[in-house]
Amino acid sequence: MSRSLRIAVAGLGTVGGGTVELLRANRELLAARAGRPLELVAVAVRDTARNRGLDLSGVRVESDALGLATAPDVDVVCELIGGSDGVALELARRALASGKHLVTANKAMLAHHGVELARLAESRGAALGFEAAVAGGIPIVAALREGLAANRIRRVYGILNGTCNYILTQMRATGRDFAEVLREAQALGYAEADPALDVDGIDAAHKLALLASLAFGGVPRFDAVHVEGIRHVAPIDIAFAEELGYRIKLLAVARLTPVGLEQRVHPTMVPANAPIAAVEGVFNGIVAEGDAVGTAVFEGRGAGRGPTSSAVVADLLDIARGKRLPAFGVPAEQLVEHPLAPMAAHQGRYYIRLLVVDRPGVLAEIASVLRDQGISIESLIQRARDPGRGVPIVLTSHETTEAAMSAALGAIRNLPSVLEPPRMIRIEEL
Amino acid sequence: MSRSLRIAVAGLGTVGGGTVELLRANRELLAARAGRPLELVAVAVRDTARNRGLDLSGVRVESDALGLATAPDVDVVCELIGGSDGVALELARRALASGKHLVTANKAMLAHHGVELARLAESRGAALGFEAAVAGGIPIVAALREGLAANRIRRVYGILNGTCNYILTQMRATGRDFAEVLREAQALGYAEADPALDVDGIDAAHKLALLASLAFGGVPRFDAVHVEGIRHVAPIDIAFAEELGYRIKLLAVARLTPVGLEQRVHPTMVPANAPIAAVEGVFNGIVAEGDAVGTAVFEGRGAGRGPTSSAVVADLLDIARGKRLPAFGVPAEQLVEHPLAPMAAHQGRYYIRLLVVDRPGVLAEIASVLRDQGISIESLIQRARDPGRGVPIVLTSHETTEAAMSAALGAIRNLPSVLEPPRMIRIEEL
Repeated sequence: MSRSLRIAVAGLGTVGGGTVELLRANRELLAARAGRPLELVAVAVRDTARNRGLDLSGVRVESDALGLATAPDVDVVCELIGGSDGVALELARRALASGKHLVTANKAMLAHHGVELARLAESRGAALGFEAAVAGGIPIVAALREGLAANRIRRVYGILNGTCNYILTQMRATGRDFAEVLREAQALGYAEADPALDVDGIDAAHKLALLASLAFGGVPRFDAVHVEGIRHVAPIDIAFAEELGYRIKLLAVARLTPVGLEQRVHPTMVPANAPIAAVEGVFNGIVAEGDAVGTAVFEGRGAGRGPTSSAVVADLLDIARGKRLPAFGVPAEQLVEHPLAPMAAHQGRYYIRLLVVDRPGVLAEIASVLRDQGISIESLIQRARDPGRGVPIVLTSHETTEAAMSAALGAIRNLPSVLEPPRMIRIEEL
Repeated sequence: MSRSLRIAVAGLGTVGGGTVELLRANRELLAARAGRPLELVAVAVRDTARNRGLDLSGVRVESDALGLATAPDVDVVCELIGGSDGVALELARRALASGKHLVTANKAMLAHHGVELARLAESRGAALGFEAAVAGGIPIVAALREGLAANRIRRVYGILNGTCNYILTQMRATGRDFAEVLREAQALGYAEADPALDVDGIDAAHKLALLASLAFGGVPRFDAVHVEGIRHVAPIDIAFAEELGYRIKLLAVARLTPVGLEQRVHPTMVPANAPIAAVEGVFNGIVAEGDAVGTAVFEGRGAGRGPTSSAVVADLLDIARGKRLPAFGVPAEQLVEHPLAPMAAHQGRYYIRLLVVDRPGVLAEIASVLRDQGISIESLIQRARDPGRGVPIVLTSHETTEAAMSAALGAIRNLPSVLEPPRMIRIEEL
């Protein structure tokens, strides 16, 4: 059996600790599959004295993560510290610059600095593995880069944030509102104390930028993702969605349109019978549509100790087995700068919910605003509940543009008979 | 850009023709992803004169497939002829023996001769790619060999035959019986004129033996798969399944039990809310359960021109990119001969349907037979329909062994009040 692959892990949080455990638990299995031992030689943690319940016998414990980048007895550095910049980025740069392979679960760092790191890795003949950065337990990076690589990808979309999916699933199951379910999710450890990265869609947008790069061979453009979170999703919209045959998911969608790359993360109505609609709770799901393969669906746990460690160690196995592929599927210098489709050019169907004064003629006013924007109505639900205080009207549109819909919503909002800002949720055809 | 990868395709049926088309349609994309052109240099077909509507300009057309194995201008042979032995096997052996890479969609050949071919490939430093042999559009071979390779796999199961899944889906949707739906499937091209390989479960068993090898690092043992097809699934069982909260699928299941490798393909009741239950029509679905990743679900088209070609060309891309992994994840000589669990040792729950004389005491007779085998009843449905002619009784059991259930069914069959052979369908806990 060949020389062992010597591994250093920086950061012993959930993922780092899980990686250390998995390397130990499946040591023999991994050696058989890799054809050589996967040997943990060093870890770096801020507080070296803290007991994490990990068996670190025979492993060097250091307080300086950056030291791993140049340690002569290390072949691969696992950057599991997190954060788009700071120590994580510095470690990644130094490790690759000194010819070490890098494995990371850091979606934020890659969404911002992925091309730079990929270029650096390629220039040194090193691998840059980031399977753990997107939907942990789902091997989607490999699937787009290899398994589905014969295809021209038309669209890739998915549920990329387990916290949001848990919250939306619970809201639907219980009828409770966002704030209440968020508090429960925090108590259960499914949501962070500061939930903004998750519930505002940023985390999903980081992952989407990486998926889009892999799918379309472009430079990751996190800055060009249209992002809306789930804070404004109301129980009444979830109920209406159900009535209309949809479910509301925080969907991340990327596709190449005639006017350029469209990337968006927002609450989305998906057909209730679509496979992605059945992805519930903390699970993630991803669908890739290719010209040859048709529709390929992937589902699994997107976060957490086991699934993310599984992805980190899969990357380590690839490295141990000698697999060397460009991080984003094609060499970094060949990644294309796709033109960016403005969100205003998005075409799709829309759900709109209004609260209006209950008097004759209101619907005619709204309909004429939509007509003026060339928007045709597909369905309408008007249901009197409390005539004194306004009634909800729910509309779905036929396909139109975001520009037309924005203009219409602006005009509708200014109608005297419309009592609160309209709520809009995009509908995705799947 | 490096030298092109020179490809020969043997067999221009659905998959071969699709592969030729895909190599041409996505030529530039594939070259960018591979870092070198994928060049089709030769094809072999029995009837060279037949017009297949394929653009073969610049491609050598031969009638002798075996000639490709030693052609000096060929780097990879795609064996897309089919059949477990005969020309396909001879071509595979000769191509590998002369140091060429081999890509094949031939599950039957691999299930029978996979280890021999893997050993040959390894001895010559050649790749043996068979992503297309299992669930075409789903990159499950790569997922088990690479993406999930950090895991000890507990169980892998799936819907591996689109024809059977289409038939069962239609039976449920329409209430029609097997024979009628099969005829319709044949008319639509979803089932072969001779449907035995599909509906008797053989095709799924070939694929299961390959999946089990990848998952558990063992020699593929097609001969050790317990196989039952779907010919005996009756509309009444589909209806009862629904009532009990299940769907009936032709499920292929492999797991390592304390007594050895268990591999089975049979009609199975799966919980209606399990992801695999939602895999409908011609789609395939596969679930892998790993110690770190938990549950990973894959769904896509399992057969047909596009999806299978997608998998063939993915293997070609891997080869062009220099990826060289042992075909079954570990070197052929290290594949283990797992002990084989006898089907009699299978543990699980069971559904039984009986047609009995409608008189007091019958149920007591049946219950005592089950009691004598240590089988306890979980639920019972007795519904009089036509008292003169017997009534159906449906039972589900708590967990028991196949041996106990077989003995019980044998005894029940001999009871005078039981009017036809009992129907049994296994229930899988998911």
